[in-house]
This record gives sequence, C-alpha cells and structure tokens, in this order.
Amino acid sequence: MGEFELIRRHFAGLAPDGVGIVLGIGDDAAILDVPPDRQLVVTTDALVAGRHFPERTAAADVGWKSLAVNLSDLAAMGAEARWLTLALSLPHLDDAWVAGFSQGFGDLARSAGVALVGGDITRGPLTISVTAMGLVPRACALRRSGARAGDWVVVTGSLGDAAAALDRFEQAGSEPTGFEAELRRRLERPVPRLDEGRALLELASAAIDVSDGLVADLGHVCTASEVGADLEAARFPASAALMALIPDAQTRLRFQATGGDDYELCLCIPPDRLDQAIRVCELTPIGRISATPGVRLRALDGTLHAFEKYGFDHFA
Amino acid sequence: MGEFELIRRHFAGLAPDGVGIVLGIGDDAAILDVPPDRQLVVTTDALVAGRHFPERTAAADVGWKSLAVNLSDLAAMGAEARWLTLALSLPHLDDAWVAGFSQGFGDLARSAGVALVGGDITRGPLTISVTAMGLVPRACALRRSGARAGDWVVVTGSLGDAAAALDRFEQAGSEPTGFEAELRRRLERPVPRLDEGRALLELASAAIDVSDGLVADLGHVCTASEVGADLEAARFPASAALMALIPDAQTRLRFQATGGDDYELCLCIPPDRLDQAIRVCELTPIGRISATPGVRLRALDGTLHAFEKYGFDHFA
Repeated sequence: MGEFELIRRHFAGLAPDGVGIVLGIGDDAAILDVPPDRQLVVTTDALVAGRHFPERTAAADVGWKSLAVNLSDLAAMGAEARWLTLALSLPHLDDAWVAGFSQGFGDLARSAGVALVGGDITRGPLTISVTAMGLVPRACALRRSGARAGDWVVVTGSLGDAAAALDRFEQAGSEPTGFEAELRRRLERPVPRLDEGRALLELASAAIDVSDGLVADLGHVCTASEVGADLEAARFPASAALMALIPDAQTRLRFQATGGDDYELCLCIPPDRLDQAIRVCELTPIGRISATPGVRLRALDGTLHAFEKYGFDHFA
Repeated sequence: MGEFELIRRHFAGLAPDGVGIVLGIGDDAAILDVPPDRQLVVTTDALVAGRHFPERTAAADVGWKSLAVNLSDLAAMGAEARWLTLALSLPHLDDAWVAGFSQGFGDLARSAGVALVGGDITRGPLTISVTAMGLVPRACALRRSGARAGDWVVVTGSLGDAAAALDRFEQAGSEPTGFEAELRRRLERPVPRLDEGRALLELASAAIDVSDGLVADLGHVCTASEVGADLEAARFPASAALMALIPDAQTRLRFQATGGDDYELCLCIPPDRLDQAIRVCELTPIGRISATPGVRLRALDGTLHAFEKYGFDHFA
C-alpha cells in the first residue's frame, strides 16, 4: 500500500463535505469560501515525537493531541473552527499506526466540526504539522493585547493536571486507572475550549491558551497589553485527581503555575462584565491585571513570588 | 539565544504589513481579510532532509525550495499568493543555518509578494512544513478535473532539468559552473509559475504543477478528468544545459517524462484558445487530450510507450 492508498483509506472520512468547502482534498490545493461578514483566523503548530509527546504514546492520542493544540489556538481567538491541513512525516508505513492516528485525529475533528481540506504524507522522522483555520465575526477576535489594569484574570477548567501526568508518566504504567487515568487523559486528550472562547468573544478583553504554563502564557498577555498581573495561588482551580495524587502543596502549585499542556483558556475580563462572563461559562477568577509590569504570585503561605522571565523556550 | 529571539531576529522581516493582514505573527493565531469577490486557496507541503533535498543542500536553497513547492501548488490553481505559515523543526539552534534558511525563504517570499503570518519553531529532526494561502476570483480556480478530449497539453518552461541535476548532484561538486550550475539552480531554486497560472485562469481547462514527473502529474489530471493523453517526445522542451550535459536522448527523455521537481505547470487548453494562450504566456504544446484513458508517449524513434501506473509514491 502506498501513500495515495494510505490517505484514501484512513483520511477520506475526515474530509466530509464541510461548510464552505468548494473543493477539498485531491487537487493541488483546496478552495474555500469565507463569508463576507467573517475574518479568517489561521494557526500552525507542529508536534515532534519524543519532544512534544513521549515516544510510546498511543497513535490515537498523538492524533487527538496534534489537532487539539491547534484548535486551542483558535479557541483563544474566539474563533469557530472550520478547516484543517495536515503534514505528516512517518518513519515507515505502519498501517495500524496510521489507522490509530486518524481515529484520534478524526474523533476530535468530528466533535469540533472541522474538516480536513489538504494534506501531505511523507517519509521521515515522526513529525505532525497541522494548520487550523477558523472564522470570527469581523473585528471581534480575542487578542493578547487588550488587557487593562483592573481586569479580572480568569481560567477555564483546572490547572496543573497535564504537568502532573507528564511527571508521573513513567511510573504510572501504560494502563493507569482511577485518578491516574484522569490525569493521563488530561495530558493525552486535552479538550480545546472552543465553546468557551466563542461565548466570551464580546466579554473578554484578552485571551491566550495555557500551553507553556500559566505564568508564561499570562506573561505573553501582559507583554502584549503592556500591563502586569497579580495572582493568588489559593484561587487556582485544582482537579480532585490533582489533589489526591499530588498531596504536596508546593509541588502542586509548581505544576499549576508553570506546568504546560493544560490547554485551558486564560482570559482577562473587565470588572463590569465578570458576572455575565461567569453566567455564560464556567470560569475561576485567579487574580487581577495591574498597571505594574511583571507577573506576581501570592503563594499559599502568603509569600510573594515575582516572575521576570516568563518564556518557556523549546531550545532553552 | 532562544526560540522567540530566533524568530524575532530572522523571521520578523518576512512578516511585513501585507495586504489583508489584520493581525500577523505574535498572537495565538493570525487574522486575515478575504475580499468578498475572492475564494481562499490553501495548500500544505512538507520537506524532510535527506528525502526531499540532499543533506548537504545550502540552508538558503532549502528555505527557497520549501516555499517554492507550496507556491507552485497555488500557481497550478491560478491563485494569487498571499499568506504563509511555517512550521520548522531543527535538530539544534544553529544561528547561521537559520539565517541562511530565512534568507532563501525570504528572497522568494518577497519576489512572490507573500507574507509570513504564523509559525512554529521547535526542536527535532530537520523538517519544514509550509502552508500557503492565496486568492482566486470566485469560481475561477484551475482544477485537475476540467480537461476534455481534443484539448492541447502544454507546459511552461523546460522539462527534465531538475531530475538531471539530482542525478549529477554527487559528481558535480559543491560549486558547479556553467551548464552544471544552471541545472543545479533549477533543482535548488525552482521558480513557481504564479504569473503564468494567473494569466491562464480563463484560458486553461485544467492544470497541475510538475512535481512528481510529467507522466505522473498529467496522469492525475487524466484520472480527475476521466480522459487520457497522447504525448510526443519530440515536442518536449529541453534547456540548452540539458542538451549539453545529457547527450544520450533516451536518458534525457527519461528525465523529461518521469523526473520530478521541475515545478513547471502542465495545462490543458481547448483548441480554440491555444493561440490566445500562447500570446499571453510562453508555452510549448506537447500533446493532446484523448477520450481513451491512460497516458501514451510517442518516443523519438516512433515507438509508443503506454503508462498504466502514473503515481510517484513516497513509500514505494
């Protein structure tokens, strides 16, 4: 079986007749219709085996996550996810692996209502590159640059689960159960917060997804908005699984504040809109935006930590 | 120097304030304006070191080519190239290599008038994945599926140069001169035929770019259009460099008919539009579309070769 047969067999089902698709997979390029009242939102993220996921991660989880990290960027813009392209480099043509990958990729694509419109499968070290395209009402997209002093800093869901799961990955074995399985699922099957991003489109002043860690990502918002932030560790939302499996409060806080891969949204909400935001969407306020640059964190024992360097860096 | 600094230093110049760019690099995603009378055309292609280019290829040539192969797909649709995203995976942070890559990538981006609107640099085996976006007037894009029996098959430029250059790559040394340098340039710096694609938008019935080899690519057109084609080897355009360096006619024909990487356009033109097509653009007619499936080639000695299997396959 060759490249074309492989694509036909495993990816045809991911390319349904989606809204706005004039011409999908199979020509030199796809042709798409963007409605006149919408703007196009585009993002690209690549995942490399051994770098972005442990080598022994199940193929279906790799497929899910490679799409999730991209849809999460669309969520952070408040966009409606629409179309995808996929460039997949594979060391060898392993039919079972590709079947698993397309299963996980397809499960999330279907649940998010996005369609594959182009792709390229080639031979090489395992690398997955996805470009995700979405739509926002004209001039409404959420940006990093809109935060103002006094805004509330809020997050969706809970923090620290994925970092804790990664930390415990080796000792947990390949078939974890109970809380261990819950944490692992948060690492391997993050759910992009597309509904939340869209619901908060006219309420939030700024947004980002938590991929590199809360402090790092909120730091990007602060830099772009020329503000700072004061966070209170006591307010950080923690899952029952995190509380049960990471009993040490210091370790837990480290995962919540600096661990990446949660793919929750961190948003800034002007004070007069906080009530409405919390009504449309489950959110936890964790701090306030300040005119003083930098991100400061009040720990559980009352001590204050200041972060000067935010950045998670793939080459550091 | 880290990832963010690397991007800022080498790629900021590739992200000018381009037409239609509401928000470029630096947020979770780019925001783009598609005019109401245009459709969006999107393609993705990845290049892997040692697979799509020899390992010792100069960084600037890798940068140029990784963009060229994608713009060539837009050219084959007759699209105007507009925006790019780039996912670059690098084994280590080699400042000189990235500087060279962005130079070659940028030279072509500027000459084609396209702007980088998003990217992801990560650590891993050398892999470059580009998504190119362009615009076409509504319902005008060239497709593979429009060829009809009687149409002329035409190509831009000349055929076989890149395949000959690849064949001679090892013996030619790293600083070829004269004809050798001309062939090498065709392999390493292919010029996507964007102007030709746009000029033929309302004249051609079908189009594809010659990336896998003329017979293979024309085969894709024939399959999509449910037709066949009869080609005449004597009409194939050959460069002076190819004639001089590949004196054996059989070898030359093999490069022209089945060698890939030329990135010329192969188009089908209805007979009553051929004159006009040749007036707007330099084209060579090389055969005719036929109602009989399959691609047939009349060789220089008059013998007829039939091709049943067209496909170049990365896993074959």
